[in-house]
Amino acid sequence: MIKAGIIGSTGYAGAELVRLLLGHEDVRIVWYGSRNYINEKYSGVYQNMFRLVENICQDDNIKELANAADVIFTATPQGFCASLINEDILNKSKIIDLSADFRFKNVKVYQEWYKIEHRASQYISEAVYGLCEINREAVKQSRLVANPGCYTTCSILSIYPLLKEKMIDGNTIIVDAKSGTSGAGRGTKVDTLFCEVNESIKAYGVATHRHTPEIEEQLSYAAGYPVTINFTPHLVSVNRGILITAYASLVKNVSWEDVQEIYKKYYQDECFIRLLDRDVCPQTKWVKGSNYVDISFKLDHRTKRIIMMSALDNLVKGAAGQAVQNMNLMFGLDEAKGLHLVPIFP
Amino acid sequence: MIKAGIIGSTGYAGAELVRLLLGHEDVRIVWYGSRNYINEKYSGVYQNMFRLVENICQDDNIKELANAADVIFTATPQGFCASLINEDILNKSKIIDLSADFRFKNVKVYQEWYKIEHRASQYISEAVYGLCEINREAVKQSRLVANPGCYTTCSILSIYPLLKEKMIDGNTIIVDAKSGTSGAGRGTKVDTLFCEVNESIKAYGVATHRHTPEIEEQLSYAAGYPVTINFTPHLVSVNRGILITAYASLVKNVSWEDVQEIYKKYYQDECFIRLLDRDVCPQTKWVKGSNYVDISFKLDHRTKRIIMMSALDNLVKGAAGQAVQNMNLMFGLDEAKGLHLVPIFP
Amino acid sequence: MIKAGIIGSTGYAGAELVRLLLGHEDVRIVWYGSRNYINEKYSGVYQNMFRLVENICQDDNIKELANAADVIFTATPQGFCASLINEDILNKSKIIDLSADFRFKNVKVYQEWYKIEHRASQYISEAVYGLCEINREAVKQSRLVANPGCYTTCSILSIYPLLKEKMIDGNTIIVDAKSGTSGAGRGTKVDTLFCEVNESIKAYGVATHRHTPEIEEQLSYAAGYPVTINFTPHLVSVNRGILITAYASLVKNVSWEDVQEIYKKYYQDECFIRLLDRDVCPQTKWVKGSNYVDISFKLDHRTKRIIMMSALDNLVKGAAGQAVQNMNLMFGLDEAKGLHLVPIFP
Amino acid sequence: MIKAGIIGSTGYAGAELVRLLLGHEDVRIVWYGSRNYINEKYSGVYQNMFRLVENICQDDNIKELANAADVIFTATPQGFCASLINEDILNKSKIIDLSADFRFKNVKVYQEWYKIEHRASQYISEAVYGLCEINREAVKQSRLVANPGCYTTCSILSIYPLLKEKMIDGNTIIVDAKSGTSGAGRGTKVDTLFCEVNESIKAYGVATHRHTPEIEEQLSYAAGYPVTINFTPHLVSVNRGILITAYASLVKNVSWEDVQEIYKKYYQDECFIRLLDRDVCPQTKWVKGSNYVDISFKLDHRTKRIIMMSALDNLVKGAAGQAVQNMNLMFGLDEAKGLHLVPIFP
Repeated sequence: MIKAGIIGSTGYAGAELVRLLLGHEDVRIVWYGSRNYINEKYSGVYQNMFRLVENICQDDNIKELANAADVIFTATPQGFCASLINEDILNKSKIIDLSADFRFKNVKVYQEWYKIEHRASQYISEAVYGLCEINREAVKQSRLVANPGCYTTCSILSIYPLLKEKMIDGNTIIVDAKSGTSGAGRGTKVDTLFCEVNESIKAYGVATHRHTPEIEEQLSYAAGYPVTINFTPHLVSVNRGILITAYASLVKNVSWEDVQEIYKKYYQDECFIRLLDRDVCPQTKWVKGSNYVDISFKLDHRTKRIIMMSALDNLVKGAAGQAVQNMNLMFGLDEAKGLHLVPIFP
Repeated sequence: MIKAGIIGSTGYAGAELVRLLLGHEDVRIVWYGSRNYINEKYSGVYQNMFRLVENICQDDNIKELANAADVIFTATPQGFCASLINEDILNKSKIIDLSADFRFKNVKVYQEWYKIEHRASQYISEAVYGLCEINREAVKQSRLVANPGCYTTCSILSIYPLLKEKMIDGNTIIVDAKSGTSGAGRGTKVDTLFCEVNESIKAYGVATHRHTPEIEEQLSYAAGYPVTINFTPHLVSVNRGILITAYASLVKNVSWEDVQEIYKKYYQDECFIRLLDRDVCPQTKWVKGSNYVDISFKLDHRTKRIIMMSALDNLVKGAAGQAVQNMNLMFGLDEAKGLHLVPIFP
Repeated sequence: MIKAGIIGSTGYAGAELVRLLLGHEDVRIVWYGSRNYINEKYSGVYQNMFRLVENICQDDNIKELANAADVIFTATPQGFCASLINEDILNKSKIIDLSADFRFKNVKVYQEWYKIEHRASQYISEAVYGLCEINREAVKQSRLVANPGCYTTCSILSIYPLLKEKMIDGNTIIVDAKSGTSGAGRGTKVDTLFCEVNESIKAYGVATHRHTPEIEEQLSYAAGYPVTINFTPHLVSVNRGILITAYASLVKNVSWEDVQEIYKKYYQDECFIRLLDRDVCPQTKWVKGSNYVDISFKLDHRTKRIIMMSALDNLVKGAAGQAVQNMNLMFGLDEAKGLHLVPIFP
Repeated sequence: MIKAGIIGSTGYAGAELVRLLLGHEDVRIVWYGSRNYINEKYSGVYQNMFRLVENICQDDNIKELANAADVIFTATPQGFCASLINEDILNKSKIIDLSADFRFKNVKVYQEWYKIEHRASQYISEAVYGLCEINREAVKQSRLVANPGCYTTCSILSIYPLLKEKMIDGNTIIVDAKSGTSGAGRGTKVDTLFCEVNESIKAYGVATHRHTPEIEEQLSYAAGYPVTINFTPHLVSVNRGILITAYASLVKNVSWEDVQEIYKKYYQDECFIRLLDRDVCPQTKWVKGSNYVDISFKLDHRTKRIIMMSALDNLVKGAAGQAVQNMNLMFGLDEAKGLHLVPIFP
């Protein structure tokens, strides 16, 4: 039985981790960290857990937690994880960090986009970028995994194979993304009040969103040259779900079958990637509550571009589900353990 | 392995049955019935099932189905089940009917409220009203279960114990109910288009809704005298969820503890009923995707009334979840098998 | 040209006042009060007013404001208006208070339900309860109007005629109300975040909501005896709209025509009350953006009760629209001036 | 007083025309056409119009209508308008066609994308594309106006000035659009049921949507060379609103001020185009119910692209509002008459 601790368990991603781990038969949650609700009943904060979780929220104490847990999930603001980890902690407990602290190999990129000094840069080289479908073997060996961002996961998985196979021009990539509001977290802001989000659509973080360099770094590895993209996130009035519409210029004449063949080469044995049939577009409603990423594409011969589309649940494959998938790999379990979640509709 | 067939598998309740049964390790679905999508891939209709269900939708053929399945779920319009069953079918396969055909012991009430002639009234006396928490033992012995309505389940479970213990006056009961739109089904009508439901609230079926006599019949058993109620359903712009606010006059002076004690007497060992803490009101978001019913109440000493409140997911405990719970009882399985669903939020 | 000032102009009710007054040709807004946005451009807070309002938000200064304005709207928290008004202010400017400060004739009721000491009780007797359809003549003479609550307006207008005409028993009244989320204001709380309200239904303030005594006071006037009611508000995932479903026992045998006749007696010349046709239930979508209250009812001869239903837009007839209607009366204008708003759908 | 007739008055665009024309003091609606609701009360179909419209829906009879009306709005399916007009009709009544029948100068493009034979191609050259901000003078002289599409209006207004001024490369334009569901109309389809749209995001018509050639034609005029674009519409769970995010490569080094200057050159005197301040992104909630188009942009020096953004209400500036604006021009009225609509929020 793996003992798991969660720091930041009362955020939306933290709460989703709780939901998933409660259904994972090899895991027991031993620590519900929450700075805002110290000493309150967890099920008083998340009433869906009434009678399922009897625990009390605990203040952050990573030292004590590392003694109690085999794995620590940090679903915390940027900079937090980097400020706490050290050799002692890492020797006692594996870390899966849901923040951006260890997602970049180049610390300057992190510091430039996040405006935070990195407090544990000595662990950057060791940390593994936990996009399982791409770094599976490295994750298995790792004690420190940087869980990818939600937009990032969706974007990279769509584009990676075509870039790697030199089907598209890396300098023409535009990612137009739409996200449900749970991605904005449970903090209280006017911008995420019901009446502000409901019945509206908006772009935000245009040309400045922090997931941009994260996508670029991974795509550059695939391309073998530096890739710079446009990334525009939009806020949509749904709770869960990310949809990516990505555009790129094709570098050669290809048929739908040619492209599908490449996707299959990379993903046909992946349990969480579903390559949709021709002319079927992904919809977030079909992946809600599950760890799936649905991927499809369309060729436009008029413009010689490809439109790549994908959908995932930002709290599952975009956060907690992927974290559990990483945990499974790190502990030598079946990668899909606890993640056989049938999408819930409607 | 129990072989299950679903008639009406492409309606919302039918699709929820598929979702739940896919996660039930003792069941295999052998028949996906759907008149509207004959010969189409089930996962083409419900894309969330892509790669999870390979089956093709089949036309209704209960004879063939009874040979193939140990249990048949009929998630079909009123009158359909009654028009098909006979001794031969019932000898081969257990039936769980999600329609109203066998919910009433008095066939006249059925015919009056539903304006349909009953085609199999000889089975009415044998049929068991499948509200597990109340008729558990009878369900276990049954081969024909009438799965209760969604509003009904929520209403009866809230009111039943207090009526049975003579705490409230049965002639003062008013049930004001609110339902998500999946309760209206997947048929196409102007009234359930997105733009018509979104950003609106309405009552419908006022003083005439068919769940009224169903609630009355069960409450009359509890009271020991004929109970007539007011029942007003409302349509609300959410996908899933029913909330009941029920009012009744208290027949004696009682404290919160007195009432809670009665609820505990009936429900404290029930796995799917959660009696909330004092001053906590149920919210549909806390039960979504699960088989729970959350119940609480408030005393108003100014008016000498009690306000009973409860919430459930209309597609789970209000339909498919309850049907699976009934199936488990009918087949001697653990009642909660396949129903350990953690509510999904947000 | 009437010069109007708004204290609390950046709350939802305040912003709706701005929207309505911008379309009122006899009014010019001279003061945009907002404690939270002092010195910020109003149209930066409410971008819908971009290019329509050039003003800057001002700190509260009622003395200065009374010199500048002919009428002051206080769309502020309870207690604020009472803490500021005095003879000097009232001599210079008419006051329309959207808070509860002057809604109760019995100061004890106010202090008990609101837990605030009343700081200007000497003006209570003079203040007029601004439900125009009932107190029209008094409003015309008033310099201090207490604008009714949103739930209250909807509830009273539905029930008042039947109580006054002794058709229903005042001690059997139950009001089950549903409100859109703008009623909860623009303050930041976890409870009104998008993900918390969306896809959920809940009751709140059960048996304790502050609109209860306000409804009771007005209904007692109608009945001629003290009326005590049950009032249960619910939060619904729409921006605007209140729907009231009210129940009462009939004191005599009546037909639908009898009841409609009474409603007509009171309302047939009212420009903002629409008595719906038989069997048509009100829906909030049909009044959105307008000052209408839609009213209908249903008789249930089985239970000898009447179900009264009504819908309004909580920000218009439930707040800003009613305030403008009061202003029109106080200044001798056509009551409907600036309020010829066609409901916007969808 | 202008007498107006509407064919297709019970669709969403038709109903919005009714809302707007009811508030237009120079217009009287004399004809409510609706094939689906012949002889029914209009206000029974759109209950928001109760007591505001007493008319009965009439079957289509353009001959009779042309005798009765000065202007005819056809809010009808493609092909309908072209099948009916002739010299006699056009001599009696001006036509504003909200369908695509007269939007293309090249009939082959129409026939290829719409798969309909054009039945009145002799009027194509005379018809004016009614995007007032671009074709104002021609509209004034016209008796047959082709009212632009919703996506199209939003897209063209954003991109037109920059293309005309040779700031961007016309062959790099990608338009990623998001629309509320009213754009899909009031016809009943599974795809637009509440539970199917709510809590989901999807792209549709990828690389094949019919607004593509319409945008291309107008942009080609601006560029002076044939422009081919990618256009991807998305369906979003709101009632009203279109948001456009458009990408193009800059052909020279420009500052924010340079670009803003160009937009100002074209739009600073336009009453319905609002150029937002720097770093303010358009949101559909800020234009809802109004005839405004909000436009802003962002430069990305890393990729040498510009991101153009704009928002409008698809039923107003995207359909009925623009139609009224065209009517005003055609009849020599103030262009903004009846369109001084303050956006309604929330």
